[in-house]
Amino acid sequence: MTPRPIFVVAGVGNGSGTGGASARVFLNAGYRVALIARKSDELTKFAGELKAKGEAEAFPIAAYTYKDVETAFSAIKKHWPDSEIRVALYNAGIGVWKPFLQITEEDIDKVTDSNVKGAFAFAKEAVSTFKDQALDGNGKRGTLLFTGATASIRGNVTTSAFAAGKFSLRSLSQSLAKEFGKQNIHVAHAVIDGAIATDKQRNNRDPSWADNADVRLDPESIAKSYLYLANQDRSAWTWELDLRPAHEKW
Amino acid sequence: MTPRPIFVVAGVGNGSGTGGASARVFLNAGYRVALIARKSDELTKFAGELKAKGEAEAFPIAAYTYKDVETAFSAIKKHWPDSEIRVALYNAGIGVWKPFLQITEEDIDKVTDSNVKGAFAFAKEAVSTFKDQALDGNGKRGTLLFTGATASIRGNVTTSAFAAGKFSLRSLSQSLAKEFGKQNIHVAHAVIDGAIATDKQRNNRDPSWADNADVRLDPESIAKSYLYLANQDRSAWTWELDLRPAHEKW
Amino acid sequence: MTPRPIFVVAGVGNGSGTGGASARVFLNAGYRVALIARKSDELTKFAGELKAKGEAEAFPIAAYTYKDVETAFSAIKKHWPDSEIRVALYNAGIGVWKPFLQITEEDIDKVTDSNVKGAFAFAKEAVSTFKDQALDGNGKRGTLLFTGATASIRGNVTTSAFAAGKFSLRSLSQSLAKEFGKQNIHVAHAVIDGAIATDKQRNNRDPSWADNADVRLDPESIAKSYLYLANQDRSAWTWELDLRPAHEKW
Amino acid sequence: MTPRPIFVVAGVGNGSGTGGASARVFLNAGYRVALIARKSDELTKFAGELKAKGEAEAFPIAAYTYKDVETAFSAIKKHWPDSEIRVALYNAGIGVWKPFLQITEEDIDKVTDSNVKGAFAFAKEAVSTFKDQALDGNGKRGTLLFTGATASIRGNVTTSAFAAGKFSLRSLSQSLAKEFGKQNIHVAHAVIDGAIATDKQRNNRDPSWADNADVRLDPESIAKSYLYLANQDRSAWTWELDLRPAHEKW
Repeated sequence: MTPRPIFVVAGVGNGSGTGGASARVFLNAGYRVALIARKSDELTKFAGELKAKGEAEAFPIAAYTYKDVETAFSAIKKHWPDSEIRVALYNAGIGVWKPFLQITEEDIDKVTDSNVKGAFAFAKEAVSTFKDQALDGNGKRGTLLFTGATASIRGNVTTSAFAAGKFSLRSLSQSLAKEFGKQNIHVAHAVIDGAIATDKQRNNRDPSWADNADVRLDPESIAKSYLYLANQDRSAWTWELDLRPAHEKW
Repeated sequence: MTPRPIFVVAGVGNGSGTGGASARVFLNAGYRVALIARKSDELTKFAGELKAKGEAEAFPIAAYTYKDVETAFSAIKKHWPDSEIRVALYNAGIGVWKPFLQITEEDIDKVTDSNVKGAFAFAKEAVSTFKDQALDGNGKRGTLLFTGATASIRGNVTTSAFAAGKFSLRSLSQSLAKEFGKQNIHVAHAVIDGAIATDKQRNNRDPSWADNADVRLDPESIAKSYLYLANQDRSAWTWELDLRPAHEKW
Repeated sequence: MTPRPIFVVAGVGNGSGTGGASARVFLNAGYRVALIARKSDELTKFAGELKAKGEAEAFPIAAYTYKDVETAFSAIKKHWPDSEIRVALYNAGIGVWKPFLQITEEDIDKVTDSNVKGAFAFAKEAVSTFKDQALDGNGKRGTLLFTGATASIRGNVTTSAFAAGKFSLRSLSQSLAKEFGKQNIHVAHAVIDGAIATDKQRNNRDPSWADNADVRLDPESIAKSYLYLANQDRSAWTWELDLRPAHEKW
Repeated sequence: MTPRPIFVVAGVGNGSGTGGASARVFLNAGYRVALIARKSDELTKFAGELKAKGEAEAFPIAAYTYKDVETAFSAIKKHWPDSEIRVALYNAGIGVWKPFLQITEEDIDKVTDSNVKGAFAFAKEAVSTFKDQALDGNGKRGTLLFTGATASIRGNVTTSAFAAGKFSLRSLSQSLAKEFGKQNIHVAHAVIDGAIATDKQRNNRDPSWADNADVRLDPESIAKSYLYLANQDRSAWTWELDLRPAHEKW
């Protein structure tokens, strides 16, 4: 029997957002799930919840450097030596929302380290892994997914720092889609255009907001889109799609 | 027992392309299928094939005018009075590819009649129908889909006429998505960025082309994307996605 | 002495908007000015004002059909047989702003006739004329300009009809820029992203609005951009620029 | 008599490219010119050439850090205490063109330091300076310009690193345009879509290339566009324009 394929996700927070929902959705779809995130109690706790339902493991890193990300991928491969990484989701990326004149050099470092450098490091590991794998039933060697935001396609007041990181991430995803499509590696980017019902957002808002599926994104719905993208066959791949609640103004 | 929902598709040609594949995919997914297309033997024949597999019917029109399209929708509702139109796909639109100085006023009429006027007429019927329907399990009253092309987002040499129609269609889909999202009507647009393996394309090219799933779009894969869009729940709707073969240069 | 070059502008209304300001700016810059517009007393009056200051003439048409536009260009060439048309601005295009379900087939015809068909007809005459002319000092045979709007790049609530025309116009300008750049014909498109201080707008708003240069576009400022585009040398041509008031929210 | 306004440009290389041409064009237009660039003999030499023609000075920095850029702006203000910085051009930004799997962490640092961090630092100084200045005759407190590239709007094979920097820069320019337009600070971005006839490019190509104004960008033509942008009045500001040679394929 073929062992389950591995789904790697970077950026899971406390598991209540897009990364966490993706872990759950891919686990349910038959994947082994590898969580990459900054070391934290939240990470350990969320990994524990997943393990209770299937094969999952946390691979904590200190920072999104080339070295740490490489180490994490090596550990994942070692942990499940009989299995292949088939889908990788880069969901990390720190946001900074400030009036421009308050943005510091440290803010820029934070944004570029997590959204640019970390994304390049993660993509390098994913692509390097995929290119030596055989085609699957859908004609692909692997799927690399990126979580974008409104700020991926539009700079705006107070988003100068965040957008700088998100525009970069989007350009990376497009460059990779073009460079590696011909090697049957599928790269896709989702523009999440609205607020997601994470624990943090739920705590910051009136309960009626989280209860109203017309006005906020459900992390699980985003995760299902990622599963859909991972399952697209080679004749019709999507590089980019947008996702927003029915009543979102845009 | 709830009767099957209706899927209406405009533009089916001989059934070998996107419209035809969508008819088959939605039929298999449990929809009654209404075909709108210019009256032709091909249409009758294709409808016959579908009827052998499920509930389907052709509603031929003379042209994509407001009147003809309205008549077709009325006939569909009359044909299945106990059922609701839940998904409508506008896949019509005549292409003209010529050096600019050879384009005639008739070419412009052909392009705008089929890509602009026909699309407005079709959308009017679909939206008018949807808005009085109850929310379905996914929180929507109906899904209106449009088939776009590379020429929807990029004008180019020899595409001045075709792009004029396709840009229009895209803008219509975006305007409608914004106007009717808040009424829980989902409008989406697919940018088909590559050649589709229709009968016509197969006949014009070497057989190795159609056999190579890396270089051309399979109409059925496009159709599956439409089904995916139709099934998105209200918390995470896509307005636009692109679709292209793995090896496409873009 | 070389005779003055001709500037042709289609769409001038009462002369208080972009078309009229362009006529004045190009007249002052040494051009003979040909006004193409629907026959009206306003047109005659505005032509009279221009003639008082330089060489100008009105060439009224009944509608933006291929035939009428062709006739107008022939008349222009006959009127100034020793001069060449060097710059042509398509500033026509009727707008329709309505909730989608109120848009009629006649509205669509109005929009496509003026924004699509008229633009194709006008471009055909301009390009046909330019291609046989010698290079000027800037290395170009002629400049073809199009006036766009916010609705050229974004569909929105109540703009479904207008955007359908404006998206088309933009795609046409891009196709032509690509097709005819290599023949040294410069095609450019301006996205006017804000309200213009025309007589009509002035009448509809508080006088403080027109007096505040931070919040509305001055037609003359737009016209100066067109002159700048016309004067760009062949090594650095702009296809598209946006124009908006300093305080515009976008 | 009012002292001449100051034009600050970051990124001038040996003076043969866009930064150098901008220095010359603004000098000729009556500006004092401040050159910011990494310390080099080329910089000293180019500053010497400018000084022979007007008021110019080099302000060398070790790197595009917040501290170095701040120091440079302070030195400029000290150097010409009776004058105001009215136009600032960020033309720096190191390019890296490599197949993705060969890109190193150092490459990413190089790209983000020069295209992202340096741009934020430069913009902070410029905007901070502008906001306390009076409106000029065009209704602006200052103009901040950014040099972009094809890679600003399109990721591609071998441009993953460069595009990551250029997309960021573009998003920054858009965010700033929106945030500071209402304070009458004009921010613009130019997409240079083609090869520029710099010394480096001239050396790498056949002489016929540099001699053919139809196929490459003249740095001076780009510089003239910057001067045009700096002179736009407040009623019609451009955020973005593209520039390419007449025969460029795009």
